[in-house]
Amino acid sequence: MRLPVLALLAASLCAGQAAEEGKPASSNIMNAEYPKVFADLSVAFRLKAPEAQKVQVDIMAKKYDMTKGADGVWTVKIPPQVVGFHYYQFWVDVVSVPDPGSDTFFGVGRQFSGIEIPEAGVDYDVVKDVSHGQVRNFRYYSKTVSAWRRAFVYTPPDYDNNLKARYPVLYLQHGSGEDETGWPKQGRVDLILDNLIAGKQAVPMIIVMDKGYAMKPGEQPPQPPGPGRPFRFVFTTFEEVVTNDLIPAIDSTFRTLTDREHRAMAGLSMGGMQTFQITMAHLDKFAWIGGFSGSGGIGPGGPFDAKTAYNGVLADSAAFNKNVKLVWIGIGTEEPEMMYKGVHAFHEALTQVGIKHVYWESPGTAHEWLTWRRDLHEFAPLLFR
Amino acid sequence: MRLPVLALLAASLCAGQAAEEGKPASSNIMNAEYPKVFADLSVAFRLKAPEAQKVQVDIMAKKYDMTKGADGVWTVKIPPQVVGFHYYQFWVDVVSVPDPGSDTFFGVGRQFSGIEIPEAGVDYDVVKDVSHGQVRNFRYYSKTVSAWRRAFVYTPPDYDNNLKARYPVLYLQHGSGEDETGWPKQGRVDLILDNLIAGKQAVPMIIVMDKGYAMKPGEQPPQPPGPGRPFRFVFTTFEEVVTNDLIPAIDSTFRTLTDREHRAMAGLSMGGMQTFQITMAHLDKFAWIGGFSGSGGIGPGGPFDAKTAYNGVLADSAAFNKNVKLVWIGIGTEEPEMMYKGVHAFHEALTQVGIKHVYWESPGTAHEWLTWRRDLHEFAPLLFR
Repeated sequence: MRLPVLALLAASLCAGQAAEEGKPASSNIMNAEYPKVFADLSVAFRLKAPEAQKVQVDIMAKKYDMTKGADGVWTVKIPPQVVGFHYYQFWVDVVSVPDPGSDTFFGVGRQFSGIEIPEAGVDYDVVKDVSHGQVRNFRYYSKTVSAWRRAFVYTPPDYDNNLKARYPVLYLQHGSGEDETGWPKQGRVDLILDNLIAGKQAVPMIIVMDKGYAMKPGEQPPQPPGPGRPFRFVFTTFEEVVTNDLIPAIDSTFRTLTDREHRAMAGLSMGGMQTFQITMAHLDKFAWIGGFSGSGGIGPGGPFDAKTAYNGVLADSAAFNKNVKLVWIGIGTEEPEMMYKGVHAFHEALTQVGIKHVYWESPGTAHEWLTWRRDLHEFAPLLFR
Repeated sequence: MRLPVLALLAASLCAGQAAEEGKPASSNIMNAEYPKVFADLSVAFRLKAPEAQKVQVDIMAKKYDMTKGADGVWTVKIPPQVVGFHYYQFWVDVVSVPDPGSDTFFGVGRQFSGIEIPEAGVDYDVVKDVSHGQVRNFRYYSKTVSAWRRAFVYTPPDYDNNLKARYPVLYLQHGSGEDETGWPKQGRVDLILDNLIAGKQAVPMIIVMDKGYAMKPGEQPPQPPGPGRPFRFVFTTFEEVVTNDLIPAIDSTFRTLTDREHRAMAGLSMGGMQTFQITMAHLDKFAWIGGFSGSGGIGPGGPFDAKTAYNGVLADSAAFNKNVKLVWIGIGTEEPEMMYKGVHAFHEALTQVGIKHVYWESPGTAHEWLTWRRDLHEFAPLLFR
């Protein structure tokens, strides 16, 4: 494109010189002044829409009316928000509109605006003066779906220097409506691991992030779960992709440790359900399991029964506890009741039948990325010890 | 996010079962049926906006009125489009709206919709059954701007296997209003190089793609060029970042060949102007130079004079021709007249003073990414020979 950005830059920076507290959100595109987050975590939004009759901002399941100024710019300052990463959108006369000032994040099945409400005094997920790993795009051919797929792979800081070393691998999945860009972008996976590894709080590891959707040629799209359609059936093709295509491709491309004691899987929400489905069916391949706001035992497949679930692998708890190094279940205290209850019930069911596991609650966070960043920050240090 | 995508998937796929020619654009998000490209390269768009009074699609500098159906969905089928990657947007009652069915691409200073109009019989830029390189995110600290920056780095297919090998490096820049995601995403840099390297048409090389914007703390934003403000002054901070911070960081992290004969720089549009500014001032560091729809000699700094331009390095053409291995200038035949004339005039000025160079025209393409993918496909094979 030709030169419009120079003019844009000049315009936005001049506006920024007005004396006003509040800072542009870190999730904004370069030099965009709005949305702006204030010290008390209230947030100001603006959108130019001179001919619109009604404009609202839609964030954290609430819609706030915006007010039109003489210049055709609609503005609103909304009450303090909880810390975290929140998807949001504008509604302009009933049309959903992203914020041109926001970067875009793949969520809810499309590219969405998002805003980072920062958590004071917390720096485990920001760029610091430590050695940095790399997130790489990784293309591999999947025989299961007869197509090339792309995953992202985090390699730890010393990967390119310590050429004799081999590393354990964590397979890490996004949630429903998201894709393989979720953990690298919304999840800040590389910064969290860089900081943990620099502090010797986590073992250097490789992290593989694939897209949790897969269809064979001619296969019908997954049906929403319902009576007689538990998630088991929804994720079958993805399970085949992971076990038959992805793991062999990763192990033949990267310097991995390939035994089950050095392979973990975790995921958030839908990715957590996929994790339990896949790992429980392939305990020969995985010894470390994590569910972030999504675990086993959820879904409409009838009440969870530890004796029969997952083909009975939980029935002999002593054998399971000896075989599986870690089962980790996380949930945010502010998640929707159905989600919180479902995960908590699974935790209680496991306790009842004597399955060792870690149950962890993220205080004050909802079903969103700050919960999952914290999950990763708690979970990763326990792996491969 | 919880489960809405499953419903979305089901809905979009069911709609897709209607018998109709035309295929979803490859630039769409997963499973989105529209926009749809037909065999004659006409394109159908649709947007749900039940309360809007007027909806248009804005593509290739033209706006097309859309028609509202009884279901509140606006549709239009527009005439055949030239092949290439085109940014586009909807206008809903004078508000610019991206297409929820499109992936987003950073251009024109924000995240934008884009559509791929495919070129029949051409496959140099698609994923094929060859060995694949990787695009890595690379974080480095810039003393020039006192901040961490991110660049993307392409490493060729054999980089992780051929551990004794060192590689030449191409620094490759995006255009105005874009960022470091441009070449990996819109530009398909890895697929173009993977295919060239597999066919032994290009030497395996590393490609570094940084953001072409840089400001020191407290520095005023770049002024649009004008009388007395040629681009020379706009890009000074970025020039310092490249030469003082980026090149040393790359050379200390990757297995590069570090002499000038193994370092190239190229860029598109604004990135081409930056390339000439930076390379001409640092011929001790670069021996290969490429401008894609943007070269030297452009801008309001007065008529180009080869005797005085760039501190006179072009004045002695024999010495320059001996020192510089390649000067490459590309332009699309359908670019705006000002752009075409500017680049063509620079080509003629170089010819007149005896500076050896390659001048190449991309037939039938405008100032956009298909021109630049073709540029890279022509330019890369000439490097490091």
